[in-house]
Formats: sequence, structure tokens, C-alpha cells
Amino acid sequence: MSRTRGTLISHTRSALSRLREDEPLVHAITNSVVTGFTANALLSLGASVAVVDIPQEAGPFARVASGLLVNLGTPAPHQRDAAREAVEAAVDAGTPWVLDPVAVGSLPVRTALASELVERHPSVVRGNASEILAVSGKGTGGRGTDADAGVDDAREAAHALARRTGAAVAVSGPTDLITDGEDDVRLGNGTPLLTRITGGGCVLGAIMAAFAGDSDDPLSAAVTGTLVYTVAAEIAAERAPLPGSFLTELVDCLHTLDADALTDRAMIRIDDAAPEDGR
Amino acid sequence: MSRTRGTLISHTRSALSRLREDEPLVHAITNSVVTGFTANALLSLGASVAVVDIPQEAGPFARVASGLLVNLGTPAPHQRDAAREAVEAAVDAGTPWVLDPVAVGSLPVRTALASELVERHPSVVRGNASEILAVSGKGTGGRGTDADAGVDDAREAAHALARRTGAAVAVSGPTDLITDGEDDVRLGNGTPLLTRITGGGCVLGAIMAAFAGDSDDPLSAAVTGTLVYTVAAEIAAERAPLPGSFLTELVDCLHTLDADALTDRAMIRIDDAAPEDGR
Amino acid sequence: MSRTRGTLISHTRSALSRLREDEPLVHAITNSVVTGFTANALLSLGASVAVVDIPQEAGPFARVASGLLVNLGTPAPHQRDAAREAVEAAVDAGTPWVLDPVAVGSLPVRTALASELVERHPSVVRGNASEILAVSGKGTGGRGTDADAGVDDAREAAHALARRTGAAVAVSGPTDLITDGEDDVRLGNGTPLLTRITGGGCVLGAIMAAFAGDSDDPLSAAVTGTLVYTVAAEIAAERAPLPGSFLTELVDCLHTLDADALTDRAMIRIDDAAPEDGR
Repeated sequence: MSRTRGTLISHTRSALSRLREDEPLVHAITNSVVTGFTANALLSLGASVAVVDIPQEAGPFARVASGLLVNLGTPAPHQRDAAREAVEAAVDAGTPWVLDPVAVGSLPVRTALASELVERHPSVVRGNASEILAVSGKGTGGRGTDADAGVDDAREAAHALARRTGAAVAVSGPTDLITDGEDDVRLGNGTPLLTRITGGGCVLGAIMAAFAGDSDDPLSAAVTGTLVYTVAAEIAAERAPLPGSFLTELVDCLHTLDADALTDRAMIRIDDAAPEDGR
Repeated sequence: MSRTRGTLISHTRSALSRLREDEPLVHAITNSVVTGFTANALLSLGASVAVVDIPQEAGPFARVASGLLVNLGTPAPHQRDAAREAVEAAVDAGTPWVLDPVAVGSLPVRTALASELVERHPSVVRGNASEILAVSGKGTGGRGTDADAGVDDAREAAHALARRTGAAVAVSGPTDLITDGEDDVRLGNGTPLLTRITGGGCVLGAIMAAFAGDSDDPLSAAVTGTLVYTVAAEIAAERAPLPGSFLTELVDCLHTLDADALTDRAMIRIDDAAPEDGR
Repeated sequence: MSRTRGTLISHTRSALSRLREDEPLVHAITNSVVTGFTANALLSLGASVAVVDIPQEAGPFARVASGLLVNLGTPAPHQRDAAREAVEAAVDAGTPWVLDPVAVGSLPVRTALASELVERHPSVVRGNASEILAVSGKGTGGRGTDADAGVDDAREAAHALARRTGAAVAVSGPTDLITDGEDDVRLGNGTPLLTRITGGGCVLGAIMAAFAGDSDDPLSAAVTGTLVYTVAAEIAAERAPLPGSFLTELVDCLHTLDADALTDRAMIRIDDAAPEDGR
């Protein structure tokens, strides 16, 4: 595809406008730490959301949702079954879905589940560098949700994962990298405060799921979600530079974010993914 | 009963005062998205609260609580068993209880559970129009927590449900309808912001449970809870018109809400329920 | 040990500085009401945190964490198994751990579990007076998380529990009492607002776990955690005297708390524990 900074920003502007008009319904299966924050972020942005994480319900709901988030942060037994059921239904019904393999690598239950689910055609896989390395079969993951590895350490693994699964792979860090194995999009917005609140990355996965139903191009959805979220966070950090009030301000800023602020602030660069792998 | 706008407001004023003096203990079995917000809202208002949602504990606790909330938003297997146990104990001990059948209709597990529990003498059943239609056996429910149906679409179903179960039935919407099958009370306070945060309705159910132990008349308790909550929300929205800061302000306003503000702002109308059903 | 007010404050100043430099990783197994608030408090203070509460993962993670919190507030079946596994691994690996026996006494499942775990060498046991009485085999616990008993009612039980288990025992109340059976440390900082938010005590347990890996002396870690938390809360209450905004301000104040404010505000008194038991 002939993606440019301009086409990606233009896509983001129109996707944000459509989201606020259509209120896409996000089906969230996520961890117990961030459920409330995730739901409030999505609602403030303009989407709808429901957490449906038990067997026999997760499947039917994934069929009617606009997008599905599967976040493995606290995978209780019933949630693991629900995640499998939801993913199967989502794939069958054509519902795009986002995999957030929180803390995979060192923790065995979620690592096995992530390895299984990543083969089921996610639209987007989002994690920090350690998590992307682990889910692609490299590395052993970080300690919990910290990224010990840098974004560039995970670049080749992200390319390989994207090419093998067809997903857009988003590696979060000071500069985010999003790739589909063809293009490498780097996004420089955001704030270190996102690492001093819980759910900084988890909410990004949920917002990607909100945009995933809007486009046939997973990479564009991942870029849009990242741009919207990190620019809102950047503005929030300027207004509320401490973690507690930043949390509140971030939810507010997702509501008030406008297309011009997005355009003015967007720090995007696009490179060809292939040459850097030496192909 | 000879309810009037005046008697309902007078009841609300004294019930709020008693709640702050007595700190009634609410037993909450609720969904994983809103537990923290629910507890903080109740504590700020002046009640006590404990989430006790496992078998073998939910029963004993329901016996000593002032009121019980059963919210079916994320009904994990152990919570479903706990809910059954708590309801049985509550009924046996005379603890009033509130059923909030979140998203029933399209989702099979909670729908079956709600159908079972609604026959166990709840004091109040609270939901949006789609949920009330579904729990009364009409309609198929909305998409998640959205109310596709309007409040008046659920009026006859609410009457029938109230008459059959003896519960007060509260239908949330831009104008709330609360009925016991004899009187229809309509309450016009609130703010659209309650639909742009998560738990806007769930917390209302919890507050009804806090007031349920105060009165032998479930309708009065449901009206009191609605009036207290929606007037506090209305004030909060004036002070903080964005979703994130509104959440914080709402918790504050539940603490500072005074009886005179309630009286000044209360938008209540009472109609006879029967004629409109053509009985 | 020759503890004085001066050595405890000096220890606290340096421990806070080390925490912010080292970002110790807290492994939290806690209740569903306070997970998000707990994580945000720890992150804002400067620690890292991960909630890992399923079997097969809790054990391995407890081995690599700096400290472990086991809070029994909503002990779902999988969490109970995870707690046992985590404690066994923590003890084996030398990871200090904190037991917060929320609402033990009247509720049978958690009471049995607390009785079992308290024998597994916790570094700190933290609760209100009713909970400490119950976990030490006295009393029948309070109603939910309320402390019906006063701090001094639990003093002898706390001494006995400390001497028997080797743990520092922290009894929360208007004035906190922390004892190892030799010294009784009383701390007078804090604010009644901590009882009008959910998690006021639970977060304290988590912060003790963050400091527990820093010292071979559990009493010092418990004192440090209490001093840091209650002074931050005291400052927050001055700035935001209502519950909702207090929650936000408390998270902010954990981030900005400095050593001089600690020293200026610290209300500590140390007594010999033994004579008061008549030994």
C-alpha cells in the first residue's frame, strides 16, 4: 500500500469522526486491574463497551460486537475459556480482534494461551517489546508488565510475527512501532506518565479494538488508535502532570480530542520494513 | 397508598439523613468493571459496603447486611453460586435485595439466572428498558448495556413484573420510571453524562440497596435512591462536564448533597398505573 | 533493637529514596474492589506492580518479586489456590510477604485461609483491630471491613501473634499500632477520609509489601509503609477534603511526597511492648 504520513493522519481524522457517530461496540475480555479505566476511556472517547468474559456468553457476544479485545493480564480459568470461545466466534463472524499478551514469556499459563490465540488471526497484536518477543517465540518476556527490551530489539520479531499471522503488530515504547511486515510506522507522541498509571498499555489495546471494525487495514486501525490515545495522553500530561490527576484528565481528553490537535501534534514516520531485515 | 410528590420528597429527605446516621451495610455482588466505583459511591454517600461474592460466605453475610445488591454484569461461575446463596439467605432473613439484570436478553447465562432470581422476591428490580423487557419475558434485550428500547416501551412490562413479583420496578432512562404496579413515579433529574461513564446505572442499584433497609415500601426506597443519585449527578455535571472529572465530582457530590438541594431540584410526577394498562 | 523515633524516621527517609530508585516489583494478590487503585498507588509512589493471581503463575512470580501482598478481600476459588502457591514460593525463595486478612472472623472461607496462611511466616500482618483479633484466634471479627474493636483492644492479641509468628503486626485505626512483640510503635498520622474511600487499608498493605524487600526488619518496613502512606493521605486531605477528589489527590501525593514533609509531620511514639502485657 502507498501509505504516507498524510494518508495515515487523514484516515485517523475521519476514523475518529466516524467512531463518535457510530459508537462501535467493543467486546472487552480484560484484566481485573483495568476494567473500569478501560470502559471509561472507551465511553469517553465515544465508543460503547461491554465486558463479557464467561463461557457461553463470550462467543455469542463476539459475533455482534464491532471489535474484540483479548487482554491476558489476569487470566482466570473462566476467562481463558471465554477468550477461546470469543476468538473462535470472532474469526467465524468476521469481527476483528486485538490480542494484548500482557506479561507473556515468564508466566506459563498466559504464555501458552497467547501462543495458541496468536495463530487465530488477530487483526492486531499489541504489547511492549518483551511481550512481542515472547509471543513471537523469541525472548523470555520481561518482569511483569515492564519492558526490559527496547522497541528496536523487537523489530525483526514484529516483522516475522506480522508476516506469519497477517496481523498488524504494535510495539509500545517511548516511540511506538507498528508494522504489518511491509511498512514500519513509528509514532512519537505520548508521555512517560503512561508508565506511572496502571492500564496505560491495556487501554491502548481497547482503543485499537474500537477502531478495528472501521477499516479493512489492521495497520491503519492500530495507527489510528495509537495516535488518538497518545496525543490525548500528551495533552493530558501537559494539564495534569501527576499520576492521579493525569488519569482523570486523560479520560477527559479522550472526550475533547479534536482532529486539528491530532494533525498538529502527530509525530509519524514511515519506513519500508523489508530492507532492514536484509531481505 | 396515598403517595404524592410531597410525601416522596419528605421521605427522601429523612431517609438520607437516617442513612448518614446509621451507615447501613450494603452487601454487594456486582460486576468486575464497577466494584471500586460502586464502593466509593456508597462510602461517600455515608453507607458501608462489602463485596462478598463467593459461596459459603455470601449466604451468611446477606443475613447480617442491611441490603443486598445482585448485579449480573460479569457473572463468573463462583459469583452465580454466591448470588443464589445470598438471595436465599436474604429472603430467609428478611434482608431486602435489589436485582440489576445487566444486559439480560441476548446473553444466555445471565438471562437464565435473572429469570430464576427474579422469582425470589426482590424488593427492587432496576434496569434500562431493554433489560426490564427481557427480565419480564418480553423483548430480547439490547446490545450490552445500551437501552435500545425507550422507557415507555417497557412500562406495561414493568407493571406486570411489579404485580407478579411484588417488587418495585425501576426503568432507567432520560426520565426514569419507577412503578409498583399501582403508582407510576417519573423522575426527570440526572445528566446524559451518566451514559458516558461505566457504572452509571450499576451504582444506582447499589444506592437503592442502601436505602432498601430503611423502609417497608420498596417503591419509596427506589425513588429515594434515584432522587439522591440523579440530583447528585446533575450537580456534578454542572461542575465537571467531562466524563473523567465528572466521575470524581459525582463521588464528591454524593457526600455533600443536602436535603434542600434535593427539594429544590426534584423533578417528580406521580400517575396512577392502572388506567394506562386499560384495566 | 534500639529503635527510636529518630532511627525510624531516618530509615523511612532512606527507604523512600531507595524505593524510587530501585522500583521494587510488588506481586499483588488482592481483592476485586481495589486492584486498580492499589496498582495506581504503587506506581505513583515509584514501585512496580503486577497482579498475578492464578495457580501455576502465582508461585513462579512470587519467587522473582521483591515483595508479595496477599489480601483476602474477595477470595475467589482460583485466587485462594494462587495465594497458597504464592506464599509457599515466597517463603521458599525468601520473598517477604504481607497478609491482609480482610473481614476475617465472621466469614468462614477467608477465616480458614487466613488461619492457614498466617502460620506460613508472613513478614507483616496488617488489619484493623477486629481482623487482628480474629486472625490471632480472639474475637469474631467485625462486620465487613469496619473495625468495631478499638486498636488497644487488639494490643495483646497483636503481641501474641507477633511473638508466635515472627511477623510485625500492624493494627490500623485512628492511631495505628505496629508491634513485633518487643516494641510498640504508634503512628498518629492520617485522615478519617481513609475510611470514606474503598481500599484505604488495602493500599497500605500493598505499600508495606513494596517496602518489605528493603529491610531485614519487618517492623521497620511496616512503619515506613504506614508513615509514607498516612502522611501522603494527610496532605491529600488538606488539599481535597471530599472523598472523590481525595482519591485522586492521594495518588498524586504519593508521587510528590518528600522526605522533609515526612520528618516534619511524623507522629511516632515507641513503647516497650512487654511490660504492658504484665510479663
